[in-house]
Amino acid sequence: MKAILVIGDGMADRPVKELGWKTPLEAARKPSLNQIAKTGICGIMDPISPGLPPGSDTATLALLGYDALKVYSGRGALEAIGSGVEVSPGDVAFRCNFATVDENLIVLDRRAGRIVNEDASKLAESLQKIKLEKPSDAEILFKNTIQHRAVLIIRKPGLSPAVGNSDPGKVGEKVLDLKPLDNSSEAKLTAEIVNKLMREFHKTLKEHPVNKERVKRGLPLANIILCRGAGTVPNIKPLSQMYRISAACIGATPLVRGVCKAAGIRLIDVRGATGTPQTDFMAKAKATIQALKTYDFVFLHVKAPDVASHDGDIKQKIGLIEKIDRMLGYLLRNIDLDSTYLAVTADHTTSSVTRNHEGDPVAIAITGPCVRRDDVEEFDERACAKGGLNRIRGMDLMPILMNLIGKAKKFGA
Amino acid sequence: MKAILVIGDGMADRPVKELGWKTPLEAARKPSLNQIAKTGICGIMDPISPGLPPGSDTATLALLGYDALKVYSGRGALEAIGSGVEVSPGDVAFRCNFATVDENLIVLDRRAGRIVNEDASKLAESLQKIKLEKPSDAEILFKNTIQHRAVLIIRKPGLSPAVGNSDPGKVGEKVLDLKPLDNSSEAKLTAEIVNKLMREFHKTLKEHPVNKERVKRGLPLANIILCRGAGTVPNIKPLSQMYRISAACIGATPLVRGVCKAAGIRLIDVRGATGTPQTDFMAKAKATIQALKTYDFVFLHVKAPDVASHDGDIKQKIGLIEKIDRMLGYLLRNIDLDSTYLAVTADHTTSSVTRNHEGDPVAIAITGPCVRRDDVEEFDERACAKGGLNRIRGMDLMPILMNLIGKAKKFGA
Repeated sequence: MKAILVIGDGMADRPVKELGWKTPLEAARKPSLNQIAKTGICGIMDPISPGLPPGSDTATLALLGYDALKVYSGRGALEAIGSGVEVSPGDVAFRCNFATVDENLIVLDRRAGRIVNEDASKLAESLQKIKLEKPSDAEILFKNTIQHRAVLIIRKPGLSPAVGNSDPGKVGEKVLDLKPLDNSSEAKLTAEIVNKLMREFHKTLKEHPVNKERVKRGLPLANIILCRGAGTVPNIKPLSQMYRISAACIGATPLVRGVCKAAGIRLIDVRGATGTPQTDFMAKAKATIQALKTYDFVFLHVKAPDVASHDGDIKQKIGLIEKIDRMLGYLLRNIDLDSTYLAVTADHTTSSVTRNHEGDPVAIAITGPCVRRDDVEEFDERACAKGGLNRIRGMDLMPILMNLIGKAKKFGA
Repeated sequence: MKAILVIGDGMADRPVKELGWKTPLEAARKPSLNQIAKTGICGIMDPISPGLPPGSDTATLALLGYDALKVYSGRGALEAIGSGVEVSPGDVAFRCNFATVDENLIVLDRRAGRIVNEDASKLAESLQKIKLEKPSDAEILFKNTIQHRAVLIIRKPGLSPAVGNSDPGKVGEKVLDLKPLDNSSEAKLTAEIVNKLMREFHKTLKEHPVNKERVKRGLPLANIILCRGAGTVPNIKPLSQMYRISAACIGATPLVRGVCKAAGIRLIDVRGATGTPQTDFMAKAKATIQALKTYDFVFLHVKAPDVASHDGDIKQKIGLIEKIDRMLGYLLRNIDLDSTYLAVTADHTTSSVTRNHEGDPVAIAITGPCVRRDDVEEFDERACAKGGLNRIRGMDLMPILMNLIGKAKKFGA
């Protein structure tokens, strides 16, 4: 028995006036999603707890069976891991941006004009060479990822992730000094090291040949690094230990990949999978069928509907749901439904009106040989609320799936 | 976006034989409650947890979003706060009655003939003057509230609320010595102080001119104070800190007002609101509309249905539900439903047959611009059980409402 868990990121929504108070899921043409609901058991699910709007990181932790309220330790390390950087226990990791500031450290562009990878790589190479002097020295790992995005790892005994951000979060505001968020000497030391490093980075970037070139080309300078989201690797048991399964992740979003990797899930690269609305849905579907030959559990993540929701593009969101539906159609045609469970849900509600993650529950449906089929016929937030799963929590989902495929361990005798 | 939470105290019930096995809510004429159900999302709610009969104090804590099982610290302090007495952290507070005992301290009347406020005030004034001698001395605050009711606060470092009652709870039984409920020196000291004080109170009351007057008028003597429900202020974060909202409470019951005040909710006095079945429902409705201009969240509490249930008066309970319905009609006509969420529920089930709080879940409905409307058409315990909220807990309600009005804080990134 095997299982596939398909996550439409931010796919759940609230009723929208322009859709006659339907949700995008209710408005979409979605024969395959409906088939899963019809042949499966349905319900609604609070990713973390009722009313609490989750981030993609905490929600993914929960959907993989972890108690996010207990194990979550910041976004930085998860994003770094997902970008292919090794983060060890004790390391403090940050999400970083190449950005543009004026001589008074006022932010002019938080993305340095969405600097191209090539420029960012050259700059990162120089930053990686910087060494701090004792006593506030540390091992430094700095890596650019996509465009203006980068990750920074600080390695030294006695650090703490309880520090703020240097990123003020807004254009027109001054770059911040990192502040310790508690009274520990560890937090003070971490803030001190990072503040010193940020000054060194700024000095190096200002004088860098790449920036001299950018001035000539009329491009915004990438003259500062903004950091935020300090975190450590969460202390979690890998799924292989929890359930004795092998697991694979198909998804392009670094943050989600990071959570999966922290959970011991093998990351599979798929050509054309981009984490954007232009992602190659069918390539992901094919890779899932392929992975299912080797792995017990495949986690298939599609970022696109969340992107459309954050843009408030309801029409695009519906279109993307319909693409996910076709992707699911391919899965349904190509899996052995006698030996495979297929679950589909969202990691959270993203309102295409407020353009934010919201705390409303999401729809969930599980089809497969031995589920207790209910009479729900459509996959959406309201129809599924009448299903046989009733209302569950995100962290219940993995135990439910593992139970169906015979991988749950008895508690008691 | 703003929210109103309307609580019909003990409004939920069990099916009653005399009503053809309907509940009072099912039997009542309630067009406005039904309108809220019809235009809203419905469910059932366990105030604390399934099967657990809550008190009004623990239920109100839960409905305000607190984990009552963790933060509840006795009724005494909450009732005292609700009566307008300041209670500081560390103080131990008791609920007290003026009562009548014979010369052997056997209770003859637990309410001293429901002594009038005027007599109780004179007696309380004398009791407040009593000073205890060292080492078992303490700062004493004694205040009569309504009729035979009073509150007592003991202030001194090193006290504990882990003490029993002096009130035996029944006529014909002897007044108790307060017992420490654990082996701590704090509990022992607290019991010792209160026992000494109770003896001093008894001495003063016996000889008091007010009681000499009462004998002449043929009234029961108010010759003893019975105390019970030792408690401290709960250690809870105010709602303003949890959600960055301003909140107001419209309700007359001291205990509920105490919980609200402990939660940082502003108490609004309404002329004619009495906490009894004779309360002025429309005055409360008007005060709610008024408060909504200033506050993000209004907590509107109606004690009456609980009173009728405790009296086993089913007909009165139905009549009071119908009055609450008319109060809700006024709210529905006077709020802006594009920017206001209106939730209605009960704090617990009170059976009008057993005349006790019971652990059955209560009905809940929330209407407002962006709820996922379900197809429930009536507001009662059974109809709402088929609604889109399914089954939630009392402490989930505030996060759900705060999420709807955009005041929930994202967990994660």
